[in-house]
Amino acid sequence: MTTPGGAGLNCRPMDNPQSTIDKPTLIVDEKKARANIRRMALKAGAGKVRFRPHFKTHQSAEVGEWFRAEGVEAITVSSVDMAEYFASSGWQDITIAFPVNLRQLAALDSLAGRVHLGLLVEAEEVASRLEENLTAPADVWIKIDTGYGRTGIPAKRTEEVLALARRLESSRRLSLRGLLTHSGHSYHAASVAEILDIYDDTVTKLTSLRRELKEKGLPGTLELSVGDTPCCSLVEDLSAVDEIRPGNFVYYDLSQLVLGACIQEQIAAAVACPVVARHEERGTLVIYGGAVHFSMQALHVPDGREIYGQAAAAGPEGRSWGDLIPEAYLVSVSQEHGVLRAPPELLRSTRVGDLLVILPVHSCLAADLLRRGTSARG
Amino acid sequence: MTTPGGAGLNCRPMDNPQSTIDKPTLIVDEKKARANIRRMALKAGAGKVRFRPHFKTHQSAEVGEWFRAEGVEAITVSSVDMAEYFASSGWQDITIAFPVNLRQLAALDSLAGRVHLGLLVEAEEVASRLEENLTAPADVWIKIDTGYGRTGIPAKRTEEVLALARRLESSRRLSLRGLLTHSGHSYHAASVAEILDIYDDTVTKLTSLRRELKEKGLPGTLELSVGDTPCCSLVEDLSAVDEIRPGNFVYYDLSQLVLGACIQEQIAAAVACPVVARHEERGTLVIYGGAVHFSMQALHVPDGREIYGQAAAAGPEGRSWGDLIPEAYLVSVSQEHGVLRAPPELLRSTRVGDLLVILPVHSCLAADLLRRGTSARG
Repeated sequence: MTTPGGAGLNCRPMDNPQSTIDKPTLIVDEKKARANIRRMALKAGAGKVRFRPHFKTHQSAEVGEWFRAEGVEAITVSSVDMAEYFASSGWQDITIAFPVNLRQLAALDSLAGRVHLGLLVEAEEVASRLEENLTAPADVWIKIDTGYGRTGIPAKRTEEVLALARRLESSRRLSLRGLLTHSGHSYHAASVAEILDIYDDTVTKLTSLRRELKEKGLPGTLELSVGDTPCCSLVEDLSAVDEIRPGNFVYYDLSQLVLGACIQEQIAAAVACPVVARHEERGTLVIYGGAVHFSMQALHVPDGREIYGQAAAAGPEGRSWGDLIPEAYLVSVSQEHGVLRAPPELLRSTRVGDLLVILPVHSCLAADLLRRGTSARG
Repeated sequence: MTTPGGAGLNCRPMDNPQSTIDKPTLIVDEKKARANIRRMALKAGAGKVRFRPHFKTHQSAEVGEWFRAEGVEAITVSSVDMAEYFASSGWQDITIAFPVNLRQLAALDSLAGRVHLGLLVEAEEVASRLEENLTAPADVWIKIDTGYGRTGIPAKRTEEVLALARRLESSRRLSLRGLLTHSGHSYHAASVAEILDIYDDTVTKLTSLRRELKEKGLPGTLELSVGDTPCCSLVEDLSAVDEIRPGNFVYYDLSQLVLGACIQEQIAAAVACPVVARHEERGTLVIYGGAVHFSMQALHVPDGREIYGQAAAAGPEGRSWGDLIPEAYLVSVSQEHGVLRAPPELLRSTRVGDLLVILPVHSCLAADLLRRGTSARG
């Protein structure tokens, strides 16, 4: 499995599938990942919505092929480097879902000459700089903030959106494609009902904005693009929008499980980690696998503890996994070390040198951290 | 500046120092870093203590040369990969300060044949496996837990240490070198006084243990090795131990500043990040620089907020920095995005496309995340 970064710290030759896992290694369950892709593709198809999956989660040309097998032709990435990588893998329709970085205009222009490129703009100044510097055409989506509060023009600021849209309409190189948002606040929802409410609110805000813009003379054909995995996973009928851009769903993770956006059997990525110490008296196992492999994103489990991962029953040589082991929580991570609070039976049955399989809190970050190495498949 | 991972996402040719920073890029102030190294080397020399710095912080052969210039000959790393990398850069005396990973025995044996190798052992089973598998000699340090609680044999378990020490003494390949600890709880201390207390407690525990072992027939020449940056920075007289292994001090960071382990002028690494959006109404600047660049390690600042970094006055083209800008906090990070709460003056004077220079919460993690790219020097 080749990835943007090439060889790295947890490299393991994939042409030798029998090679031993000796370091923290991302393992992907291809069957589950393909099923996750198929389910989302079918749902998008049923709603006649374009499925433009976000590839920042896997960042792998090989996993990209699993999407192509389901008819996907358009993708989302979050950096110019990722766009270049996937363009080199034959993807011809790529949206960079990140505010345009004016320091990479030359690279953007080169990309625009190679692929059908979509860009996110939220300021007239940026539109002007693009117009001055691009020699090839590009689509532009106006980034709208529908409540997440990270970036984008707040949905209620119709005049600001209108001014930017007019600026874009007068452009020779740039084609105004639509309104795009990422309702990332769904990741912090307290219930499935709240996620569904966030989706309704997002759609209401975008459709109202589009209607107001039309009343002010803009074309009514502006597309609406939404992105977050919790909403796209839980909403049945997505036909109110024109495009969905989920990414996390390809692997899911513990965060999505706790949100109710997936079931345990849909989690398709894990990290196999060597056990390097056992502490019976403390009830812990120390693993080679820490902040530089899992990230420090913590999840609050029901009893209030912060965890960084949870062990699942490990298959042979750590290449697959079964059910989550109750309470087998990764309770702390430092640079390379992880400390797993192990229930008595797991502690008893585990020896130094064994592999544990840990499901990550956030698969996007874990996969990114581990991406420069190769991965095994369950 | 070459690093273990080679080329990567934030690559920038160092042979062209005029090239523009266009992505999140680690910048290192060589003068400050060299001063940090010199200060620690002088302190170690004054105490007649071996200075075996931890190279996991910088993971750079070039920065390694700055240590060599101060007379350093022995180093610490935290993985077999790092040991291999620095062995290839000519380092001949390397301790891997991480519990032996039994899945990398062949690589360890190969290293033991190339360099003077030090290993950490805390279980007889591991000692036996090393004895069976190593064909070259290696030093062994018994890992002692003096209160951090991550791993190691608790210092009060004299009999357990004794049994392991006797097992090692009977070995043909392994030489018992001493007792090693990492008092990582100093990173969570509430005051400088508490850090000094942790150091005293660490030394008391190690010297008591060594005395008890001597009374039971072990040589009294066992060395004592300690490691954490807060203690090594703040304790003036280190002569009670035989070796110090700090790493973080080469760059320091906001965590160390808040602990009182350094002053602002000693922080020697920062991350230059392009500004990609401004939000006057929210008082924020959005930067290209997120969890995959800074990590999600948060720091609680005095007013209770969690931050992931703080902006400093940026020098020309983001290649240097001055004083920290009060309250200019990186308040949230997602995969590639960072949101900086910008004081009015900073907000007013910053445009999209500018570079901000952000001091990280934990320089080890930020440098690790960014290490595959090249770095600039201030």
